[in-house]
Amino acid sequence: MLDIRQQALDYHAFPSPGKISIEITSPAETTQDLSLAYSPGVAEPVREIAQNPEDVYKYTAKGNTVAVISNGTAILGLGNLGPMASKPVMEGKALLFKRFANIDSFDIQVKHNTVEEFVATVANIADSFGGINLEDIKAPECFEIERALIAQCDVPVFHDDQHGTAIVTAAGLLNALEIQDKSIATAKIVCLGAGAAAIACMDLLIKCGANRSNIFMLDRQGVITTRRSGLNRYKQQFANDTDSKTLTDAIKDADVFVGVSGPNLLSAQQLALMASKPIVFACSNPDPEISPELVHKTRPDAIMATGRSDYPNQVNNVLCFPFIFRGALDVRATEINDAMKIAAVEAIRGLAQLAVPEKVLAATGEASLAFGPGYIIPKPMDERLCEKVAKAVATAAVESGVAKLPLPAKYQ
Amino acid sequence: MLDIRQQALDYHAFPSPGKISIEITSPAETTQDLSLAYSPGVAEPVREIAQNPEDVYKYTAKGNTVAVISNGTAILGLGNLGPMASKPVMEGKALLFKRFANIDSFDIQVKHNTVEEFVATVANIADSFGGINLEDIKAPECFEIERALIAQCDVPVFHDDQHGTAIVTAAGLLNALEIQDKSIATAKIVCLGAGAAAIACMDLLIKCGANRSNIFMLDRQGVITTRRSGLNRYKQQFANDTDSKTLTDAIKDADVFVGVSGPNLLSAQQLALMASKPIVFACSNPDPEISPELVHKTRPDAIMATGRSDYPNQVNNVLCFPFIFRGALDVRATEINDAMKIAAVEAIRGLAQLAVPEKVLAATGEASLAFGPGYIIPKPMDERLCEKVAKAVATAAVESGVAKLPLPAKYQ
Repeated sequence: MLDIRQQALDYHAFPSPGKISIEITSPAETTQDLSLAYSPGVAEPVREIAQNPEDVYKYTAKGNTVAVISNGTAILGLGNLGPMASKPVMEGKALLFKRFANIDSFDIQVKHNTVEEFVATVANIADSFGGINLEDIKAPECFEIERALIAQCDVPVFHDDQHGTAIVTAAGLLNALEIQDKSIATAKIVCLGAGAAAIACMDLLIKCGANRSNIFMLDRQGVITTRRSGLNRYKQQFANDTDSKTLTDAIKDADVFVGVSGPNLLSAQQLALMASKPIVFACSNPDPEISPELVHKTRPDAIMATGRSDYPNQVNNVLCFPFIFRGALDVRATEINDAMKIAAVEAIRGLAQLAVPEKVLAATGEASLAFGPGYIIPKPMDERLCEKVAKAVATAAVESGVAKLPLPAKYQ
Repeated sequence: MLDIRQQALDYHAFPSPGKISIEITSPAETTQDLSLAYSPGVAEPVREIAQNPEDVYKYTAKGNTVAVISNGTAILGLGNLGPMASKPVMEGKALLFKRFANIDSFDIQVKHNTVEEFVATVANIADSFGGINLEDIKAPECFEIERALIAQCDVPVFHDDQHGTAIVTAAGLLNALEIQDKSIATAKIVCLGAGAAAIACMDLLIKCGANRSNIFMLDRQGVITTRRSGLNRYKQQFANDTDSKTLTDAIKDADVFVGVSGPNLLSAQQLALMASKPIVFACSNPDPEISPELVHKTRPDAIMATGRSDYPNQVNNVLCFPFIFRGALDVRATEINDAMKIAAVEAIRGLAQLAVPEKVLAATGEASLAFGPGYIIPKPMDERLCEKVAKAVATAAVESGVAKLPLPAKYQ
């Protein structure tokens, strides 16, 4: 058998380089077909759109198209390898958009010298698409980039590394808290990592009811506290008035550990200091902050989640991003707001609490799945995700007033 | 029967809005498939590309992808209607790229305030693609835009409205000159129109042997002469040292009329002033500068071409752009240079001189086609185009030293 490396390279090289192509969706065989698709027929939709700009959704693919855009400054866990090296990841994202939500997505790599230049470039092309999925852009620039693009673009802009991760994490965490009989409002939460995902996760947890003063975020220098200086403004908002300095200090009596940092950064000794019935989300990929085996041995009362598909409770963005855009596109939402994000959290969370039909078990390859410590998050192969998450997002968009279209019949 | 307008609108609205979508080219069903397509497998091609940038062609779709990019400032014959109104045309171009040359193409609309901003935006995203096809950008800005992008981009940049039109026009014109027993070097050429297509056509004719002093170009103010002031530098190079002021002045004893202007601007009286055995390319679309009926009645000795598919000798860019990019991509050309353009001219021209097989007749819907006044340009449905034009272009790229790859086996 080929090793995984060669398998992955072959997968990308054959049958043709890459993973996506363009398909023609209208008849294009005869001269007559082409006279409608191009000159002279194409002048008719051009004139309609010139008169009524919203008709671009009626006569072009814009409304079902999402651009996946990166500058390659934070590729997977590999770092800043530049725009071109990010292309396989971005094509992979496009593949997942199509596979899970039938969204037509293609990838664009942006080279630039400054945040302003990146923002200007993306803003200038944004109208070509129904939505923009930002990807693998490093913190703290990603926050400013997303903020500026949301302000400048008429279509939804969503940085998946932030919000996709945050939504799936929050969904799993709320379920874990319920099972452990803990309250989000009073839980002590330690977040190891202070990058894009970490900050978005903690932001969303606060919107879901967490208390800011119960959150202890750590960067490479240790706990982010009000005693520290030189913090960027994104970290600053999580500065805690505490004497804790190290992870060992902060982890004592913590109810929740969220790791979005690096491999093996949480020790068994540190884990032992957590409160009873702890919740450990060790999401560093492929190697978590602490191994599930070690967690279960050290703290049998823990609920454990990772970023890996080969353990229970995988925190996987694919549970969210295809469907949050599906819902947004279906009602032509102008943004992806907090109400839509929280609706996605609740829908993903709720799905894990439902009985799992045989069909889903077959697709996921599991003998059985039931809501509990080993199943707090739905499986990516669960086909109910699209229906439930997209519907919840679309409904929230309509109810929060950011939808240009009413809820379509399929969601009613 | 529906009128053509409604037919064209329906064509664009159904079965889904627009004409193109994304297709997944690799297996994407099982969890195992997705672990190769995305995390963790995708890290392998990322690492390879980071180490060896050319591997982006091996592991991603870049090498077969062409972006069709417009700002909507010169849409078809309709004018400056803005980026969004250009989208159906750009999607149509993508459809033609796929249909005729199996190139994966998608469209990007750019909004901008200045030429510099447009250029910076496109240059920043250009590496995402194997080539850039600029489209429907008004003159004279299009010249500066193309020049700047060619200088800044590592992939070929081609403004089809200029060069595609010029290449097909030159191919037909050289054949017409041969049939009329005239020489390109001595032919008096009148060009009505001084926009992007006109200037590119006359540039290319000069490269094919036309004498600059025999060319009389007219803009809305009349003949462009050395007596005129305030000409932009693109028109200036065609300023002729002549007392001719009007089309009627210039057309006298002309061998060739090339119209890239507007409907019905050449009268029968003016046509009558042309030299014996004149050549009339009336390419304004859908309404030519003079109707074929009027030409044949007034000057039975003329050879006539138009931009229309319902008359013989259609000057249609689709004869060129899919194949010039096919050839360029196949040898990874870094630019589309004059040698490649002239190779395309010769290949298109040569194809019209070959016997037409039954299969091609059936596809084009013609009873018979033979090289002569009524058949100087191949038909778009002629499947031999891809083979012959792309091969000629690829060969020219290799021979002129702009190809990164050797000529592939299929062209040898």
